Amino acid sequence: MGKNTVLNAVLPEVPDLHYSVSVTTRAPRPGEVHGRDYFFVTDEEFDEMIRTGRLLEWAEFVGRRYGTPRDYIERCLDEGLTVIMDIDIQGARQIRERMKEAILVFLWPPSMQELSRRIHGRGQDSQDAITRRLSWARQELEAVTEYDYVIVNDDLEKAAAELRAIIIAERCRVRRTDFRQLAAKLGTSADELRL
Amino acid sequence: MGKNTVLNAVLPEVPDLHYSVSVTTRAPRPGEVHGRDYFFVTDEEFDEMIRTGRLLEWAEFVGRRYGTPRDYIERCLDEGLTVIMDIDIQGARQIRERMKEAILVFLWPPSMQELSRRIHGRGQDSQDAITRRLSWARQELEAVTEYDYVIVNDDLEKAAAELRAIIIAERCRVRRTDFRQLAAKLGTSADELRL
Repeated sequence: MGKNTVLNAVLPEVPDLHYSVSVTTRAPRPGEVHGRDYFFVTDEEFDEMIRTGRLLEWAEFVGRRYGTPRDYIERCLDEGLTVIMDIDIQGARQIRERMKEAILVFLWPPSMQELSRRIHGRGQDSQDAITRRLSWARQELEAVTEYDYVIVNDDLEKAAAELRAIIIAERCRVRRTDFRQLAAKLGTSADELRL
Repeated sequence: MGKNTVLNAVLPEVPDLHYSVSVTTRAPRPGEVHGRDYFFVTDEEFDEMIRTGRLLEWAEFVGRRYGTPRDYIERCLDEGLTVIMDIDIQGARQIRERMKEAILVFLWPPSMQELSRRIHGRGQDSQDAITRRLSWARQELEAVTEYDYVIVNDDLEKAAAELRAIIIAERCRVRRTDFRQLAAKLGTSADELRL
């Protein structure tokens, strides 16, 4: 299954977790809904978003562009929510640079057959696009060491449980902890505890 | 509840997770079983274990000593198991120094009343021992920033879910990943993928 299947299994189960809907210049595929799967925009609109700094990251992939709207992400984070994005290594690198606290999770394909099946499977792309996607997939695999976590995507339930665990665990990170709040629980202060 | 309650809720649910039974020179409390709760040894036996390098870490706490048998841990890790230890900050510092891959999780007491209740609660210790334990608890709180994760221990189910998530997430860490195995899944090699 693809990344969306795993995301859809996790999203309803983790409180305060929001999926970041990307902007794209590619055409909707059958069944895709504007605002749920993507915000579909023209090349001119995308250019304008880049120009006005409204994209937190963007990437080009086989002639189409994909990006993350900055205002939505910032609003979510300000509210203390966790935002999950489905982006490629180009976007991930930009996010890592701009948001040091971001966590990168790599979904590893279960087999080359499956990877190839996914790349060919949509049956609506030219041979040239498929070749470029295969070469791109290879570069993505080689970049796995830049990520924080890797999940082998061979069993939906296991993969979803692992992604859920990563989100819950990262929320317990000491470096993300609000020590004022923790100390207050004990009727003392972070200062008094030298935290 | 204490740390044991949380551990006991997690141990049966995570595969390949082993609890490291400590060695101690203190006397068994009612209900405690040698080999399950602790290995109860004499001061002479403990000295001998230190002298022969058979303790991975040890600490003294209110006149009693506690330690982790090295051979058991090494055997477990060689078999690819995860080992969980219930140790204090003195022991945690030794583990961190000797095993860089160790993960430290702090169980934060839900309130000062609860912390104090736990310290007084056993009803079998002198005032002096209680005072020393209170001051020690304070030093432990101040050391929370040396840990990787913090779990607020105010709800057993939530605390256990978080500890479970931390273990599962840490197993997905890229830096713990066997890339030869991952690459083999794709019918390629780690070398070929430059991993």
